[in-house]
Amino acid sequence: MYDAVKIKLNNLKNNKIFELLVVAVIIISALEIGAKTFDLPYSAISITTVLDVFITIFFLFELTIRFVADEDKKAFFKKGWNVFDTLVVVVSLIPIDNSEMALLARLVRVFRVLRMVSVVPELRILINSLIKALPQLGYVVLLMFIIFYIYAAIGSFLFSEINPFLWEDIAISMLTLFRVMTFEDWTDIQYETMEVYPMSWIYYMSFIFFTAFAFLNMVIGIVVNVMEEEHQAAKADKQPSLSDLQQELKEIKAVLSELQKK
Amino acid sequence: MYDAVKIKLNNLKNNKIFELLVVAVIIISALEIGAKTFDLPYSAISITTVLDVFITIFFLFELTIRFVADEDKKAFFKKGWNVFDTLVVVVSLIPIDNSEMALLARLVRVFRVLRMVSVVPELRILINSLIKALPQLGYVVLLMFIIFYIYAAIGSFLFSEINPFLWEDIAISMLTLFRVMTFEDWTDIQYETMEVYPMSWIYYMSFIFFTAFAFLNMVIGIVVNVMEEEHQAAKADKQPSLSDLQQELKEIKAVLSELQKK
Amino acid sequence: MYDAVKIKLNNLKNNKIFELLVVAVIIISALEIGAKTFDLPYSAISITTVLDVFITIFFLFELTIRFVADEDKKAFFKKGWNVFDTLVVVVSLIPIDNSEMALLARLVRVFRVLRMVSVVPELRILINSLIKALPQLGYVVLLMFIIFYIYAAIGSFLFSEINPFLWEDIAISMLTLFRVMTFEDWTDIQYETMEVYPMSWIYYMSFIFFTAFAFLNMVIGIVVNVMEEEHQAAKADKQPSLSDLQQELKEIKAVLSELQKK
Amino acid sequence: MYDAVKIKLNNLKNNKIFELLVVAVIIISALEIGAKTFDLPYSAISITTVLDVFITIFFLFELTIRFVADEDKKAFFKKGWNVFDTLVVVVSLIPIDNSEMALLARLVRVFRVLRMVSVVPELRILINSLIKALPQLGYVVLLMFIIFYIYAAIGSFLFSEINPFLWEDIAISMLTLFRVMTFEDWTDIQYETMEVYPMSWIYYMSFIFFTAFAFLNMVIGIVVNVMEEEHQAAKADKQPSLSDLQQELKEIKAVLSELQKK
Repeated sequence: MYDAVKIKLNNLKNNKIFELLVVAVIIISALEIGAKTFDLPYSAISITTVLDVFITIFFLFELTIRFVADEDKKAFFKKGWNVFDTLVVVVSLIPIDNSEMALLARLVRVFRVLRMVSVVPELRILINSLIKALPQLGYVVLLMFIIFYIYAAIGSFLFSEINPFLWEDIAISMLTLFRVMTFEDWTDIQYETMEVYPMSWIYYMSFIFFTAFAFLNMVIGIVVNVMEEEHQAAKADKQPSLSDLQQELKEIKAVLSELQKK
Repeated sequence: MYDAVKIKLNNLKNNKIFELLVVAVIIISALEIGAKTFDLPYSAISITTVLDVFITIFFLFELTIRFVADEDKKAFFKKGWNVFDTLVVVVSLIPIDNSEMALLARLVRVFRVLRMVSVVPELRILINSLIKALPQLGYVVLLMFIIFYIYAAIGSFLFSEINPFLWEDIAISMLTLFRVMTFEDWTDIQYETMEVYPMSWIYYMSFIFFTAFAFLNMVIGIVVNVMEEEHQAAKADKQPSLSDLQQELKEIKAVLSELQKK
Repeated sequence: MYDAVKIKLNNLKNNKIFELLVVAVIIISALEIGAKTFDLPYSAISITTVLDVFITIFFLFELTIRFVADEDKKAFFKKGWNVFDTLVVVVSLIPIDNSEMALLARLVRVFRVLRMVSVVPELRILINSLIKALPQLGYVVLLMFIIFYIYAAIGSFLFSEINPFLWEDIAISMLTLFRVMTFEDWTDIQYETMEVYPMSWIYYMSFIFFTAFAFLNMVIGIVVNVMEEEHQAAKADKQPSLSDLQQELKEIKAVLSELQKK
Repeated sequence: MYDAVKIKLNNLKNNKIFELLVVAVIIISALEIGAKTFDLPYSAISITTVLDVFITIFFLFELTIRFVADEDKKAFFKKGWNVFDTLVVVVSLIPIDNSEMALLARLVRVFRVLRMVSVVPELRILINSLIKALPQLGYVVLLMFIIFYIYAAIGSFLFSEINPFLWEDIAISMLTLFRVMTFEDWTDIQYETMEVYPMSWIYYMSFIFFTAFAFLNMVIGIVVNVMEEEHQAAKADKQPSLSDLQQELKEIKAVLSELQKK
């Protein structure tokens, strides 16, 4: 009998209408979260409270169906998206009365919107490909971090007494350098330190050049990676390579030379 | 007799000089719109009034010719550009006396400049190719919107009491986040919230990283799409594929092995 | 005897050391221009005056050599770079005493630095390739201009009374829109108009999206162009095409089928 | 006996654990530098002093091992990274008591973090490839410098009396133009000069266009270079070229025609 239920649930899970219903509930949940940021009349607040309970129950229900319908119970929690869904549902279930925790509860509910990504396959593929691209960029990011660290240390040594708000320690200096990298009012910072160290423009210019160059390298790295993958995919089309053709030509030549000898 | 008129109109429509005349009238219409934004002497204003009537009549005339000359009357309004042209002409015809509506009338006339796009074929192709590229970007745009929505909800929950002007509700927060994405005085916003939540730099940094990454992905997606299309166009050149060549080689080998058997 | 002089001058013109001398004089001329922007002692000013005369004479001398050494006198002035060089030299020769014109004379001398481009072949190639790339971008630039024009007209109609400094007429509005495109304090402009028209954020957002999209298209257009050229250059390597190979295979098959018939 | 030591040291040098130890010491050195920028209690300061001595001795020890283990003593100092490592170690050894020099000593120690690059092979490859890409960009950078120089000279001539802080001489003007290129409050500078020269927006716009165009060219140059290298690497895979295949086909045809004659 359990198997019969499982098959039915599996049918339900793969049902197009059920999928759309899940997406619809996520959208309603997103709209509710958005609505809560506005000043609402008392009646609307009570509606959102009811809605909240309904959405929590619906998500719990949907997760249960997916879990029961799954063939391999162990593999279920090995998929990152399933773990994420479970976390979102479980955390919503914790009853929070304390007003201080209310903010936290609200924040957790915001992540329900991310369930959109775990439900729509196209978005899931997009995110997966983004995550896959990250490790290849590892060393460029490390290099960028080293540049930031060295400049932040120098900046903190030289400028900390000029403006402690921007350069007090290495952590604050890194934040300031990130600001310089986004070109956000960076000349104000520069003019301030140039009054004490007139040559400090070298510090800013070299920093901008290095980070821009490293960033450019990162972008080019991604583009080349993407193209390489396209290239590999094209190869996997089972088109013969030029080497294959050369091999065939050699075989033909061998046959011909035998014919000639006759 | 109607057919004779239609042929004559068709000739007129495809006449190079007539086309140039249409472009010229659109340019005059654009210049007139521009001129109206300056403080004009009374005489010039009366000229623009006359010009306005002339341009409206000319556009009506041109549209009529194109409509009459068209073979298939029904298909005429299925083309987006024709609908756009008709709308621009029809709206200009509505007599507007009321001074409040005068502003609206002026705005509608501005869209006459867009007729430049509907008349010059190269621009029409450009716009069409832009519109064609949009759906392929759909999911990246959706992902971007989800990122914006989640961050706006969080920002509105946490910061709305720090600065209601920037974070009051989710709509205003999204506007503020768009500002952060363009790096426009974003550090001022950051320093303000860091006074209450010292760790809120994580909020801004992660947002900038996510949007930059999604944007980068969008750009790379477009580049790859464009290249793919170029590639497809090159293929359509009817160059034989390597598989075709391999096929031919196999046929040759078959012939040779038969020869050998003799 | 004139021919003998011509050959000698031609030798001089193509002499590596003479070429380096010309580059050196241009660099000295550039340094002199730079030096003049500083507060110089009286002695240094008199040196620059002497230097000025020397450089003018040297350039005149160098231009004369190139002109005399040239085979075809008519073709000499058909080359853009020669015309540019002549203009720079001729304008420097005009004696300017009037103090008001002194500024103009100074500005003209600045363009001597551009002679660097006309003398160093690698820079000349770079500039030529930049100029060659421009017409292909023509329609995207036109589209960009139409977007600017329409938005400037709308902006001027709606916002001119809110802030005449930014939106008074269509010309000033275009300048303001260029500022918005560079993200320079654009939110200040936006917040100002949003007080009167709360929905005016649509105006700015849509403008930023359209221009960013058109700009992206321009960049991709250039990249694809450059790649296409590389591709064409690779083709011109006289590598046989796949079609050529297929042709050869067909010939082989024809021979074989004849052999079989025997 | 010396040889036995050399072999042992070489083993040590290539030992995976020793390599990780070196990386660990560099990271500790980096953390120490970072820690010094915070206000530390007295006990922590004494720890960093001890740590400083330990790191200096360790680096000296590691460099000695690498030098002794190296086969060719002369070639050792021909590698840029070895020279860099030696410099960092030697400068750390100089005893500095004078308080004024203390800042310099601190700065030198910051460069120890860069040893990370000389030790991790992947980072070394990254930096090497960046350095290799630079000369190819030489002429675009030169062109950019010429554009900056000319605009700075003009700016200094025209605007030096409007705002000496921004335009006093050619050096300060170049700094200001770099600021304009990063779009940092550039409209403030523009509005200021437009009060005196109403047409000076042409100066800024043309400058932005030229630098953007040159920059775009640089980026495209890098992308094309990278792709070319990928292409060359693919070729080096020893795939036969189409010409090779054509050659083979010609040989087959020659054999066939001989067969036919029999």
